[in-house]
Amino acid sequence: MRIEIICTGDEVLTGKIVNTNFSYMSQKLEDFGLSVSWGTIVGDDREELLAAFRMAGERADAVIVNGGLGPTIDDLSQEIAARAAGVDLVLSKEWLARMEDFFRRRNRVMSENNRKQAMLPVGSEMLDNPVGTACGFALDIGKARFFFTPGVPRELFRMLEEQIIPRLLARAGAPGVIYLKRFHTYGLGESHVDQILAGVEDLVPDGNVKLGFRSHYPQIETKLTVRGADRDDIDRKLAPVVAEVRRRLGNFILAEDDQSLEGVVMAALAAQGGSLSVVETYTGGQIAARIAPLPGAEKIFRRGLVARDPAEIAAALGLDGALIAGEISRETAEAVACAVRQETGASHALAVLIEVDDGPDRIDFGGSIHLAITDGERTQSRRSRIYGGRDWVRLGAIELGLDCLRRYLHGLPVTERTDFERTERS
Amino acid sequence: MRIEIICTGDEVLTGKIVNTNFSYMSQKLEDFGLSVSWGTIVGDDREELLAAFRMAGERADAVIVNGGLGPTIDDLSQEIAARAAGVDLVLSKEWLARMEDFFRRRNRVMSENNRKQAMLPVGSEMLDNPVGTACGFALDIGKARFFFTPGVPRELFRMLEEQIIPRLLARAGAPGVIYLKRFHTYGLGESHVDQILAGVEDLVPDGNVKLGFRSHYPQIETKLTVRGADRDDIDRKLAPVVAEVRRRLGNFILAEDDQSLEGVVMAALAAQGGSLSVVETYTGGQIAARIAPLPGAEKIFRRGLVARDPAEIAAALGLDGALIAGEISRETAEAVACAVRQETGASHALAVLIEVDDGPDRIDFGGSIHLAITDGERTQSRRSRIYGGRDWVRLGAIELGLDCLRRYLHGLPVTERTDFERTERS
Repeated sequence: MRIEIICTGDEVLTGKIVNTNFSYMSQKLEDFGLSVSWGTIVGDDREELLAAFRMAGERADAVIVNGGLGPTIDDLSQEIAARAAGVDLVLSKEWLARMEDFFRRRNRVMSENNRKQAMLPVGSEMLDNPVGTACGFALDIGKARFFFTPGVPRELFRMLEEQIIPRLLARAGAPGVIYLKRFHTYGLGESHVDQILAGVEDLVPDGNVKLGFRSHYPQIETKLTVRGADRDDIDRKLAPVVAEVRRRLGNFILAEDDQSLEGVVMAALAAQGGSLSVVETYTGGQIAARIAPLPGAEKIFRRGLVARDPAEIAAALGLDGALIAGEISRETAEAVACAVRQETGASHALAVLIEVDDGPDRIDFGGSIHLAITDGERTQSRRSRIYGGRDWVRLGAIELGLDCLRRYLHGLPVTERTDFERTERS
Repeated sequence: MRIEIICTGDEVLTGKIVNTNFSYMSQKLEDFGLSVSWGTIVGDDREELLAAFRMAGERADAVIVNGGLGPTIDDLSQEIAARAAGVDLVLSKEWLARMEDFFRRRNRVMSENNRKQAMLPVGSEMLDNPVGTACGFALDIGKARFFFTPGVPRELFRMLEEQIIPRLLARAGAPGVIYLKRFHTYGLGESHVDQILAGVEDLVPDGNVKLGFRSHYPQIETKLTVRGADRDDIDRKLAPVVAEVRRRLGNFILAEDDQSLEGVVMAALAAQGGSLSVVETYTGGQIAARIAPLPGAEKIFRRGLVARDPAEIAAALGLDGALIAGEISRETAEAVACAVRQETGASHALAVLIEVDDGPDRIDFGGSIHLAITDGERTQSRRSRIYGGRDWVRLGAIELGLDCLRRYLHGLPVTERTDFERTERS
């Protein structure tokens, strides 16, 4: 089945907004074993829209059109869809009633131009939008089934998942169910993960497990797309592959599925009735910012201390300035972690101290990271070098700090070497 | 002149990477008065690429193709360009020598498959790439001039600006020079800025000044694109418009052109030989993180203190716990700002204390922000309410805190009302 996507709107065409809807849709379809063959971006222009709809209708079996369902005069999708299909627009009393109800429940008055959103091409199938006033619809144009969706991301996401993907899977004649299993790792590069996992798909002989990756530095997401008759069939196929992926990636797996690294750290602390204080330098507050705003963190996150100058940290924690003068070491980081824990009464403390190199911000710009974690009895530390420019060093250090904390809380080694650093003796 | 963009590559088509190259190119062209009419996204597939090149060659006057110039077998742009133009590929000795030199200067050996990057369609014009091994080129296909560019962003950006835009402007017959003037504001919504600036373009009677906006919450960027015979002509045209924009947007302009809010704050502190300490709660370290990692901040940023619980802040600063128990007020924020300034010996202190509402994270979720700034002699504070969900409240509070600090340092009122908040008596 050939699938195309058409993104409409001047804001997307002129680059005022980055087209994240396209990448979201395409990736979501991939997760369900459906591939997009072609993407088109056109503005709010009648002739361009008509040409785009007609061409896609000649080439594709299914087309998703995004945007242009709003109430204003530059929202043209229904009008041009009707023109391309050679039908009229007609008022959907059902959708009008839904919209009136939508506004009533929010104590707002529906404006007259919202009526336009209930005008649909004759013969179209309504696609429900439970979170907005734009009515999705499906319609044949040329030889393709077109699915018209709203530009507002959260409205699009629900319609795609609940309305469109099931219809596409039915059209593709795909048997049964599709399931996506995800693993998140930090510390291994994409090609390294690929190499480590070579052959895991073969554990399912029917070829119905597909391996894929998505890299967003410093984390890599490993995806297993599984097709099966039903959920039991999928679980049966998936179990040996999941076990093997866990075995091979080992301690590098920091979270699975919808979990996040900071969420896993929070949960581990909560399970112990623990709390956390953080000291950081060049990361500038971004380690604290990953945890402090989370729902529930008000009970876990105790205190964060940020300073660029190590002497300032010594002063804040009442440490001997001599300890911190001169070169920073693992011992410095350990002393800082112990001191902030004692000072704030937290059960756990993390200190991430960084010396950035001098010189211009280039690809060979690096920094030395000294980190320590303590619970008052067990203190662990490590040192590493990260290169790649100022931002790269900072992002790497944030993830390294949080991931070592995860490892510490789960009783795993904090010194396992990553692909992103050059280890030095310390 | 009709311009199209074709983005190639499986990673873009499958949504593995978000297509920021498209929005970058489109916006950059807009800044020079050039508009993109159509965008196409295709994968690394010979037949799809050929179809995309041929269709664009029939419709457009100029086409920018992005990606597919690398050394690997799935990089197909030169091959398909030659096929679409009906010519052969030939080795460019000039580019081969450039590549050999590129590797030699980096003490690396050029691998055999890099030779492929020097194979260009016969008759093509080379487009220089000073920062990579992919050779850009221009070639006629159908009735359009095609410009082939590398997928690596920093290589694309330089080639677009230095090689392609001048050629496009020459083709468009655009006289003289184009200049882009930008203003950054916080606190006014886009439609409000639009309304405030209505008619400013008319200050230049020849119609050669164009007004545009770009909104990235919480900041809005206002852009003036000016066309003129030369830089003097532009300066003459621009002067009255810039003066009028500055007058109308007034204190809301936080920076111009390449400046950032945090950079302006840093510069104002540096000019006074000052230093800064920050106390924050729900923003979780993100206010500190805007300033602390900047080059030069090691001399300015003194200390950041982060806690979710106000009692923790009182403890850290040796404040009376009773002051902070119960509801937070402007007075609390002022006491905290004064205490952290004294404790850390900084010349200036900013305190941003937030009470987030209870309840689910919805569009009507809000928070009360209490902020105070002091230099030890002059203490100013404000309170405001921001709604829009947890992230929205946090992002708004970060910007509000930094912008009030800018206003304080520049001697402007910190209590001017923004469009993003509901003010309450306090």
